[in-house]
Amino acid sequence: MRRLLLAGLLLCATTAATPALGSPEADTVNRFFTEALEHSPAYDHLRELTTRYPGRLAGTAALDGAIEWAQRVLGATGVDRVYTQDVMAPHWDRGAPESVQLLLPSGRVPLAAAALGNTGSTPPEGVTGEVLMVHSLAEVERLGPAGAAGKIIFYNRPMPPRFAYTFDAYGAAGDQRNQGPVVAARHGAVAALVRSLTLAHDDVPHTGNSAHPVDGPPFPAAALSTVAADRLAEALAADPHIRVSVTLHGRILPDAPTRNVIGEIRGSEFPNQVIVVGGHLDSWDITPGAHDDGAGVVQAVEVLRLFHALGLKPRHTLRCVMFTNEENGLAGATRYASIARQAGERHILAVESDSGGFTPMGFNLGSTQGNAHERAQRWRPLFEPWGIWRFSKGTGGADVNQLLLLGVPVAGLAPDSQRYFDYHHTAIDTIDKVNPRELNLGAAAIAALVWLVDTDGL
Amino acid sequence: MRRLLLAGLLLCATTAATPALGSPEADTVNRFFTEALEHSPAYDHLRELTTRYPGRLAGTAALDGAIEWAQRVLGATGVDRVYTQDVMAPHWDRGAPESVQLLLPSGRVPLAAAALGNTGSTPPEGVTGEVLMVHSLAEVERLGPAGAAGKIIFYNRPMPPRFAYTFDAYGAAGDQRNQGPVVAARHGAVAALVRSLTLAHDDVPHTGNSAHPVDGPPFPAAALSTVAADRLAEALAADPHIRVSVTLHGRILPDAPTRNVIGEIRGSEFPNQVIVVGGHLDSWDITPGAHDDGAGVVQAVEVLRLFHALGLKPRHTLRCVMFTNEENGLAGATRYASIARQAGERHILAVESDSGGFTPMGFNLGSTQGNAHERAQRWRPLFEPWGIWRFSKGTGGADVNQLLLLGVPVAGLAPDSQRYFDYHHTAIDTIDKVNPRELNLGAAAIAALVWLVDTDGL
Repeated sequence: MRRLLLAGLLLCATTAATPALGSPEADTVNRFFTEALEHSPAYDHLRELTTRYPGRLAGTAALDGAIEWAQRVLGATGVDRVYTQDVMAPHWDRGAPESVQLLLPSGRVPLAAAALGNTGSTPPEGVTGEVLMVHSLAEVERLGPAGAAGKIIFYNRPMPPRFAYTFDAYGAAGDQRNQGPVVAARHGAVAALVRSLTLAHDDVPHTGNSAHPVDGPPFPAAALSTVAADRLAEALAADPHIRVSVTLHGRILPDAPTRNVIGEIRGSEFPNQVIVVGGHLDSWDITPGAHDDGAGVVQAVEVLRLFHALGLKPRHTLRCVMFTNEENGLAGATRYASIARQAGERHILAVESDSGGFTPMGFNLGSTQGNAHERAQRWRPLFEPWGIWRFSKGTGGADVNQLLLLGVPVAGLAPDSQRYFDYHHTAIDTIDKVNPRELNLGAAAIAALVWLVDTDGL
Repeated sequence: MRRLLLAGLLLCATTAATPALGSPEADTVNRFFTEALEHSPAYDHLRELTTRYPGRLAGTAALDGAIEWAQRVLGATGVDRVYTQDVMAPHWDRGAPESVQLLLPSGRVPLAAAALGNTGSTPPEGVTGEVLMVHSLAEVERLGPAGAAGKIIFYNRPMPPRFAYTFDAYGAAGDQRNQGPVVAARHGAVAALVRSLTLAHDDVPHTGNSAHPVDGPPFPAAALSTVAADRLAEALAADPHIRVSVTLHGRILPDAPTRNVIGEIRGSEFPNQVIVVGGHLDSWDITPGAHDDGAGVVQAVEVLRLFHALGLKPRHTLRCVMFTNEENGLAGATRYASIARQAGERHILAVESDSGGFTPMGFNLGSTQGNAHERAQRWRPLFEPWGIWRFSKGTGGADVNQLLLLGVPVAGLAPDSQRYFDYHHTAIDTIDKVNPRELNLGAAAIAALVWLVDTDGL
């Protein structure tokens, strides 16, 4: 009987902690969503950012312009304070447009390609050689210099389509882009080509970061579109000795000055305790970066506007952080965490949106205790009417993960992932790929989570 | 104590009926999804349908061609039987392109417009008149002929953006398109214009069905794009006497012969008991109909292919039904239900996909007992890994609703609704608006639901 009683008490405790539909909590959550759907300027902000400042890589004038723009937008949002943090960031430069050509007896066939971040240059006239097509790093390691030396290594393992969550497919193929060029270099290859990390079959190449060799210069490497990769594989099937010409101009320049941009509303009760909402302001050089991560940046601004529009004063200081240099260095996030640690600031939550501006489905939550996602479950009934239902264990995202390492609970918005890698790190990650309602639902979801943590604790 | 015991037993019963993750049931459900993600031809089918046979309205050669195409596709899918059902359907014809012009002192400004289905024609030279802008049917009723006679009535109430589920917003504004022209006619107006039913702000007009006057000829009426509607509203604000010219050529022709297309796999145990999976093959005349409802049609075909590919023999007869004339008459669905009733066929489930080919979120289930959605909840753990979590009470959809009226339990696939009305009934409802993975996840979701009902009962 004692056990039954205890179970009953636990049930009551859980019930009491779960805000009911129709409660004041539900009413406020609903107001975040309706206000965002009816009045959000986030899509207009995103249009400005992506059309005026495409290619916002650290070290570019585009990122400098975006940093100025971001301060103006935050200032106009009615926050208490706008400021920046100086950051020195890695500076990679693509140089002149890359060229990859398939040398057929009938002539040269250009293959759609994009140099990978952190990679190096070929001689100006390019390198020409036979191609070793592989499907894993292990295959190159096994073949060794005997198989790889003097060759162009072509990693052609597709992202597997079988996963529900496309980030799992990205993880399953990403080692080719991240480590493939370094492994190719180590075994004496002259260049590396990597099948683009996407589930789409089209002629759009996807850039992205690649590891720097531990010793030695950056290695020339480029991504091929999936259509180009299939074209090359077909040519190799017909003639294993077919040759390819690769001309790349990538170089690593001295670190460049850049800035994190921060806007904050001072907490009414706990001004020295901070909730961060963030995204990253930089993007790869070839993309307007609408989903990655213009969406996250304008959603973070919208979170602050929503508090203002609803007349809600946060108890803790609410800070919108636009991180710099997420794509090729994480220098902005590292710097933010370092300053926070040195200042002894207490952060009670850091939320990030860096998985696209698609329909929100839930959050990935992480904490050093490991159960933040379980504690957030009690709010699920408030979110379900808005289609948001999944509170999973995760690390939040690359930028706030720097705060998780300091013990700060983190959350990453988890939108529908199906289309994300169709556009990721490409020239077609444009404003028209973002739906305003989906973007605004995401902003409202973050605002509601922040408000619940601010009032009720995580 | 007796009550406690009973509660305990009920709890056990519920637990036993819920298939666990890792169970054979979960394994089969997962195989539907992975097979669809890896090998589905549905997107290729959709490309063929939408590019070869756009504008598949009843009475058109495009629909006739699509009916032949559908039989070929079903035949190649490895079903036991392909056949058609003759249907006589309403036949509306748009005639020559419509024209709506704003007559400014500086000249004529064309407004993007599309005649509404079932509506009539103006004199060949058009009608020109002053505009009465209203925001509800009640406003016209209140003003009466004194306010409306001789005027062009302009219904300009937007779809409200505040709803999470866009079909609710559609419902909240749809009376203007459905009944607005008839009400305008009754009060002596010369034509009606209706703000397009969409949450997008662009220059794309959205057609759709409008009621036929009970007595009298069809009335000339057209939808304006939301940009055109705003333009007209602005012009009226500047000059309430501004005139508009409307030229429409719609006419209702004698009923046209058309066909439902059916493919079936014979049930291994209960061949006389039927599970329907369906979509509608027709579309509005101005659209390729990719989401509405090419997606539903190719998903229904994919459901049959999935059973075949997985080597699963359904116990009940599994029937893919491509309904004709959903858009302007429901003659195909009515005919199907009538034949089924006369033949005394027992249907145990009818599933429809007619809410777009977007990421599936759940199902709307309906039954005469009213609790089909509650009984389906036990399968939720099997669907959640695939992002499908909501089993709501609903009517399935317009086509299967004809079977619900006969007592058949129905289910409608409920995909993410955010983008649906951006394309609905427009020239931009094209193949590129559909993502292959989202389409295939929807097909797999339907197949899994059908398999669970086939093996376990609803």
